[in-house]
Amino acid sequence: MEISPFVVVSDAPGAVFPKGFLASGVSCDVRGQGHTNRLDMAVIYSQKPCVSASVYTRNAIVAAPVKWCREVRASGKPVHAIVANSGNANACTGPQGIEDNRAMARQIGEALQIDEGAVFVASTGRIGRVLPMNRIRGGIEVAVSQLGTEPAHGLAAADAILTSDTRRKVVGVEVRTNEGIIRIGGMAKGAGMIEPGMATMLAFITTDAKIAPERLQRLLQSSVDASFNAITVDGDMSTNDTVIVLANGASGVVVEDALETEFVAALNYVCERLARKIVGDGEKITKVVELRIAGAKSDAEAEKVARAVGNSLLVKSSWFGGDPNWGRILDAAGYSGAEIVEEQLTMAYRADDNAPPVLAFADSTGCDENLAQWKEIVARKEFIIELDLGLGEGAARLWASDLTEGYVNFNKAE
Amino acid sequence: MEISPFVVVSDAPGAVFPKGFLASGVSCDVRGQGHTNRLDMAVIYSQKPCVSASVYTRNAIVAAPVKWCREVRASGKPVHAIVANSGNANACTGPQGIEDNRAMARQIGEALQIDEGAVFVASTGRIGRVLPMNRIRGGIEVAVSQLGTEPAHGLAAADAILTSDTRRKVVGVEVRTNEGIIRIGGMAKGAGMIEPGMATMLAFITTDAKIAPERLQRLLQSSVDASFNAITVDGDMSTNDTVIVLANGASGVVVEDALETEFVAALNYVCERLARKIVGDGEKITKVVELRIAGAKSDAEAEKVARAVGNSLLVKSSWFGGDPNWGRILDAAGYSGAEIVEEQLTMAYRADDNAPPVLAFADSTGCDENLAQWKEIVARKEFIIELDLGLGEGAARLWASDLTEGYVNFNKAE
Repeated sequence: MEISPFVVVSDAPGAVFPKGFLASGVSCDVRGQGHTNRLDMAVIYSQKPCVSASVYTRNAIVAAPVKWCREVRASGKPVHAIVANSGNANACTGPQGIEDNRAMARQIGEALQIDEGAVFVASTGRIGRVLPMNRIRGGIEVAVSQLGTEPAHGLAAADAILTSDTRRKVVGVEVRTNEGIIRIGGMAKGAGMIEPGMATMLAFITTDAKIAPERLQRLLQSSVDASFNAITVDGDMSTNDTVIVLANGASGVVVEDALETEFVAALNYVCERLARKIVGDGEKITKVVELRIAGAKSDAEAEKVARAVGNSLLVKSSWFGGDPNWGRILDAAGYSGAEIVEEQLTMAYRADDNAPPVLAFADSTGCDENLAQWKEIVARKEFIIELDLGLGEGAARLWASDLTEGYVNFNKAE
Repeated sequence: MEISPFVVVSDAPGAVFPKGFLASGVSCDVRGQGHTNRLDMAVIYSQKPCVSASVYTRNAIVAAPVKWCREVRASGKPVHAIVANSGNANACTGPQGIEDNRAMARQIGEALQIDEGAVFVASTGRIGRVLPMNRIRGGIEVAVSQLGTEPAHGLAAADAILTSDTRRKVVGVEVRTNEGIIRIGGMAKGAGMIEPGMATMLAFITTDAKIAPERLQRLLQSSVDASFNAITVDGDMSTNDTVIVLANGASGVVVEDALETEFVAALNYVCERLARKIVGDGEKITKVVELRIAGAKSDAEAEKVARAVGNSLLVKSSWFGGDPNWGRILDAAGYSGAEIVEEQLTMAYRADDNAPPVLAFADSTGCDENLAQWKEIVARKEFIIELDLGLGEGAARLWASDLTEGYVNFNKAE
């Protein structure tokens, strides 16, 4: 019997789940629409200093908060807090944006009596608009005053970072060790602009593990590659993508080589769950398709195929329509830039891991006799497509959403 | 006063416009839907042998007719005819597809008493279905019997290759030289799966110029790069893209170094007009946006930016909505992979070539004072976006369509 190295706590309230973390989520009408009951300002805080790890967008144009966070990370100093607003990305806002961002960190620092350089800042929303600093300042003041460790505090923080998301995204796990329990909590927002390789989103993860920052950074990078970087809604990657982990050591349990395996499994789970929640809540999507590419010349080639298929408008439109149009999938694989030999290629639909693969293409031709089965599978809300290039050992996995009329309608104007 | 090197003939009937070319377009119900009045089989024929030039999809998976055409081209032998069907792509159809394709060439060869290797074949439509050869054979037989030089013949051929196109696409120009008149005629189909770099489409161009095949191939490649390879509807590139030029020399006018400039201008015009017609008739589109990228480190970097912007779902959705959301455009430029320095970047909207550019972004910030003007410009059916990266001399131009709910609805099932 296999023993799970960690336990999922289904009602864990995100960031406040580990020991020593406080959070709050309040409303300050960042959008300027008079939606005074819509939460849009979140703070996460640990009185104990935290080591941190973080990963950012690879977009060449990054928002002011991303520039700030990179400096915080580069300083190597202990961190105490994250402040995040939704409704405005503070991107492409020039020197004013830099100054406003710093003002957010400074205000948190003064209110919590910590250095401004101990505060990560994140913003998400429309690009190109200056922050409404009067309302932001008011929001931060209230958010600090409402910090707490109750589940409601964690859930309010999780709600405050949502934009076009339709559902809150939180997760929590426990690693039960002989030295005590480590907890990891996570909250995220996604929805639009979700792209593999960047997974345009915010995710804040807290843990009470005691761990060295270099180790934490290495583990986070690997977790992110297998989770947030393996989802796609629309192929766009944002100016603001940010994943931050804060570790305050409050559990007293030290993660070194000894406990690394267990901690990694738990961290991977947290990242993968948040990523799945993001793609499953993509803007107006109706389906999530898991693409499994195998037999490529290399993992990088397999990933090219996965992204070409997962981002093809024609493929995504046909998923929306429940049409098993495998020709479009092969077409996208063909233009991915990866080496493909039509005669070596096989493709199969699969309802889930427990169901057998149903061949769609093999020996250079379609397996039309399986049409009825394909239709049943692609009618599901989730299914798997397996493509084996038959050329090598390279593999990749990508979760992709469909493309709906609702997506276009939703995004045609903000 | 500038003198145009060629004259556009507005009612030129496509392929039969130059001397010595016959054409026909007939109905044989390739789709098997009983649409017996929908034209779906085209033949173009020149009794005089032609030199040819051709360019094909760069997709790793190509349809049987593309494999065949590459062999015809590689043989270097004179060509007499093109046969093309719509309604079925004959792609991913294995050995049966190869055999069916050859049977099409052979039937044309026998009927017209030419070598089967003198016949180009093209197919367009759904991938992965075997051709209905009984109906195809009947269609070819009728098409050959109806060949003629009248405008109606050229227009029927142009109609027969359309799939989801809503409009016929033909063009004709004359180059008036001291030695006589050269004519160039063209017909094309596009609509779905239109992507720069591949411009998924069929285009057949005929000319009565006398020209060496190596010269014709060189000129065609360069024309294609600036036309069919500079449009995008959905970023997908097909298994069947084909551009063929047949030159039968019937005008008696020889194109060598002397007349090359004039001929090139005319050929460029023909390719560009057909390409513009294709993007302007993209599936369910409502707008065509010309992207002009300048100041990149290289032309290749500029093209990366143009394609990232022109294929961004968020950008295309906002065009559909008439929303001047320049933040999404900068975001797409940022993730294009090209070198971008936010501080160097300027972006402007422009109604057309005669209107001045209206700044949207400069000095790291948005030029919000121009909002009213942006809105007017993006409400147009066609407009221009200029992005200057400020880093070098690299430039690129791309015509891109918007993305509409109609596109998704149209493509969700075939």
